[in-house]
Amino acid sequence: MDLNSDLGEGFGVWTLGDDAALLGVVTSANVACGFHAGDPRTMRAVCDLAASHGVAIGAQVSYRDLAGFGRRFIDVDPVELADDVLYQIGALSAFAAAAGVRVAYVKPHGALYNAVVHHEEQAAAVVAGVRAWGEVPVLGLPGSAFLTAASAAGLRTVGEAFADRGYTPAGTLVPRREAGALLTDTAAVVERALRLASDRQIVAVDGTVVDASTVESLCLHGDTPGAVQHAQAVRAALEDTGVTLTAF
Amino acid sequence: MDLNSDLGEGFGVWTLGDDAALLGVVTSANVACGFHAGDPRTMRAVCDLAASHGVAIGAQVSYRDLAGFGRRFIDVDPVELADDVLYQIGALSAFAAAAGVRVAYVKPHGALYNAVVHHEEQAAAVVAGVRAWGEVPVLGLPGSAFLTAASAAGLRTVGEAFADRGYTPAGTLVPRREAGALLTDTAAVVERALRLASDRQIVAVDGTVVDASTVESLCLHGDTPGAVQHAQAVRAALEDTGVTLTAF
Amino acid sequence: MDLNSDLGEGFGVWTLGDDAALLGVVTSANVACGFHAGDPRTMRAVCDLAASHGVAIGAQVSYRDLAGFGRRFIDVDPVELADDVLYQIGALSAFAAAAGVRVAYVKPHGALYNAVVHHEEQAAAVVAGVRAWGEVPVLGLPGSAFLTAASAAGLRTVGEAFADRGYTPAGTLVPRREAGALLTDTAAVVERALRLASDRQIVAVDGTVVDASTVESLCLHGDTPGAVQHAQAVRAALEDTGVTLTAF
Amino acid sequence: MDLNSDLGEGFGVWTLGDDAALLGVVTSANVACGFHAGDPRTMRAVCDLAASHGVAIGAQVSYRDLAGFGRRFIDVDPVELADDVLYQIGALSAFAAAAGVRVAYVKPHGALYNAVVHHEEQAAAVVAGVRAWGEVPVLGLPGSAFLTAASAAGLRTVGEAFADRGYTPAGTLVPRREAGALLTDTAAVVERALRLASDRQIVAVDGTVVDASTVESLCLHGDTPGAVQHAQAVRAALEDTGVTLTAF
Repeated sequence: MDLNSDLGEGFGVWTLGDDAALLGVVTSANVACGFHAGDPRTMRAVCDLAASHGVAIGAQVSYRDLAGFGRRFIDVDPVELADDVLYQIGALSAFAAAAGVRVAYVKPHGALYNAVVHHEEQAAAVVAGVRAWGEVPVLGLPGSAFLTAASAAGLRTVGEAFADRGYTPAGTLVPRREAGALLTDTAAVVERALRLASDRQIVAVDGTVVDASTVESLCLHGDTPGAVQHAQAVRAALEDTGVTLTAF
Repeated sequence: MDLNSDLGEGFGVWTLGDDAALLGVVTSANVACGFHAGDPRTMRAVCDLAASHGVAIGAQVSYRDLAGFGRRFIDVDPVELADDVLYQIGALSAFAAAAGVRVAYVKPHGALYNAVVHHEEQAAAVVAGVRAWGEVPVLGLPGSAFLTAASAAGLRTVGEAFADRGYTPAGTLVPRREAGALLTDTAAVVERALRLASDRQIVAVDGTVVDASTVESLCLHGDTPGAVQHAQAVRAALEDTGVTLTAF
Repeated sequence: MDLNSDLGEGFGVWTLGDDAALLGVVTSANVACGFHAGDPRTMRAVCDLAASHGVAIGAQVSYRDLAGFGRRFIDVDPVELADDVLYQIGALSAFAAAAGVRVAYVKPHGALYNAVVHHEEQAAAVVAGVRAWGEVPVLGLPGSAFLTAASAAGLRTVGEAFADRGYTPAGTLVPRREAGALLTDTAAVVERALRLASDRQIVAVDGTVVDASTVESLCLHGDTPGAVQHAQAVRAALEDTGVTLTAF
Repeated sequence: MDLNSDLGEGFGVWTLGDDAALLGVVTSANVACGFHAGDPRTMRAVCDLAASHGVAIGAQVSYRDLAGFGRRFIDVDPVELADDVLYQIGALSAFAAAAGVRVAYVKPHGALYNAVVHHEEQAAAVVAGVRAWGEVPVLGLPGSAFLTAASAAGLRTVGEAFADRGYTPAGTLVPRREAGALLTDTAAVVERALRLASDRQIVAVDGTVVDASTVESLCLHGDTPGAVQHAQAVRAALEDTGVTLTAF
């Protein structure tokens, strides 16, 4: 099982989340590339630290939207979006290379992540941007248009699940405004992770058991103190039960 | 002799200069990387066109300053500047690679170009950024702190002269506000280029002959209609006299 | 009849359109406020020139999107959008005041203009931003959600028509990709303007006569040489037939 | 005595400092206007809260430099700088007006603050931008070129001192890298404030008593938990000794 988290999401004087703590937990770091967050100095520091921890570096590509942290859908022309993606991967690759490693995968961020679940043109555009870069795996939502397009384009696809989010019986995330959207209890988060690792199953909010057979990575959040503790608890529990934690 | 020019200096809807015309003239394209100009789509288009013309692609790195087109000195921390440079080279490298080529050299733009003539810390920072990328040549002003630092760091340095700028007897450029700053006569521009190619000499505004023995590249401008004609006339004249035009 | 045009749409070194020529034609200037175009120096220059010509100054408010020139829909939170609008009007008002006049109206730009034709929340947000500023008129598409919301909020609404765009029988614009989207013949553009001024009618691409009784302003484009000539021809023809040209 | 502090210095998802706590302490709020920090939503929230606390709102104007938080000198053309200042004041004024108040003063931020201590052209440019706005007071360093130019231009000038910074015997700030640059002991900070309020004097690091007769405002920082406590302790001590705390 792979553990991934969003890192390097500060910008200039502003910081977000506890990168150092998370890099002691995860096996894959989704590094912001400057479009929603991530100035060059931060990118370099995160890449250096990730490489020294043996954590894989992924390009967390986004719409160009610092003011909105990439959380707002933008109706970008697909040709431009592909080039925006390629630009970001290239920029990150320089810091990865300076740290002695390579960009190991690509994961869309925020609103782009959500858009490419259904938006065929943008999904194809992100895939086109990744392919123009090279044959790296992509990380995304199981069943999304993005993973489907990536697979069709010959890229290795890696499905992810969320350790601390509630799921509907249909296997989608409970919207953030609704009850059950977030698992706040550490025990519940850990149980989610263990069940996923052992059986590739997720228990939905109503108790339905959802198939997660294509999930190879578990997404951990780190932007709140509680989230870091959850992440650490998940790692400890997985290690205790003998699950091998390794990047895909 | 190499002929270089600044290209890809539009941003989004805005364009600047005649990239297509210049790519039929130069042997090296200094491509804007997004910090003073150059959106990803433009970068890709210029890289594709340059590669198809057999024109070498260089990273034209800048201060982060779209509003000022990189023409204003910024007192950036050298550590940040090195990372800004690395970011830009990395981003461009993705488009170069997509076009089947590599970033062949690095040239600072605008105020950064001028700053690193004398500013030791920023010169060292640009060199550090380039070296973190790899062993690519750098293009700059002969005798500048930048080329000195680059040379000391083991990088190949390439001096450049300007086809249409007036020179002082000391071999520096006549400031733009002063008389003689710009050669506006095509014949004078062509003569400058021919003398440089044949004798590695530049004739200053007062007639003094300035040594230009380290100059391997001639910078042509393309942001005005007249400039494009000058560039085309220079190329034609150099070819007529049998000068081999090739990237360094 | 009012004649309006988009002005001040350069940014830094980049220019767009012929502001000086248009300011000799229009009675209302939609001035870009920095979010899709328009640096402070340009805003000041356009405001000074508009004031000296007796041309009314309007705030051309946009999504925050320099890279996309405000032409891409952004799913902004309405609360943020209202504040983005207020910010832009305030910024422009400083330049208007320095020129001795006031911001006379507000007109959404590009993708925001199109969005608020139907998007109720964003239409309400723009209205909220305008109202937070004050009781200024708004300029927009007749029948749009935006004008409806503005009217309900007590703002004076001004409908506009386009001199050089094709209309469907239903009174909407022919999409730019379809035949007839653009009137390229000066005579046709002038005829559109004259009929609109005299009868408040627009002839659609199929000959249908469309009611334009709420139209008080005619939008002229100025970003191509041909467009400037159209604009000048329209003004001359309207003056020749005795139409009073004045801001609303 | 006036107490001022920098507020609204987040951007989008990123926050900085404890605005709510500081607004319970200060009498004047230096509100970031979007060039070094401060998105429109934050500007509105801070203005609303300041107005409800009866705290005066000042425009904290900066170089355009989000990536550097306005802490890097930029060699901006003075004409552009004046317009950049005017733009920022105008933008803030819209939020002040929406909160029922007016922009009460202007204070340069960061590197611009430091530059205009000596840089005559930039000092004159900031003054020109302020004057283009109107007759509002300016806040700055006693003896600075900025206050001198502002005074000559007919603006009311307000000198400020720093509660938690070490002073040299010459009355300038001890550079941040040197020992004694920061007062970290609450008692020392409070003593500084009391002596300033009662005698208009500052005790330098070597014990020299420095004249501070033109100081009418004390700058408090709020970007660390300790700083907020210092600020609160200063206010409490000043109130205890009967000093009237009010905006200038």
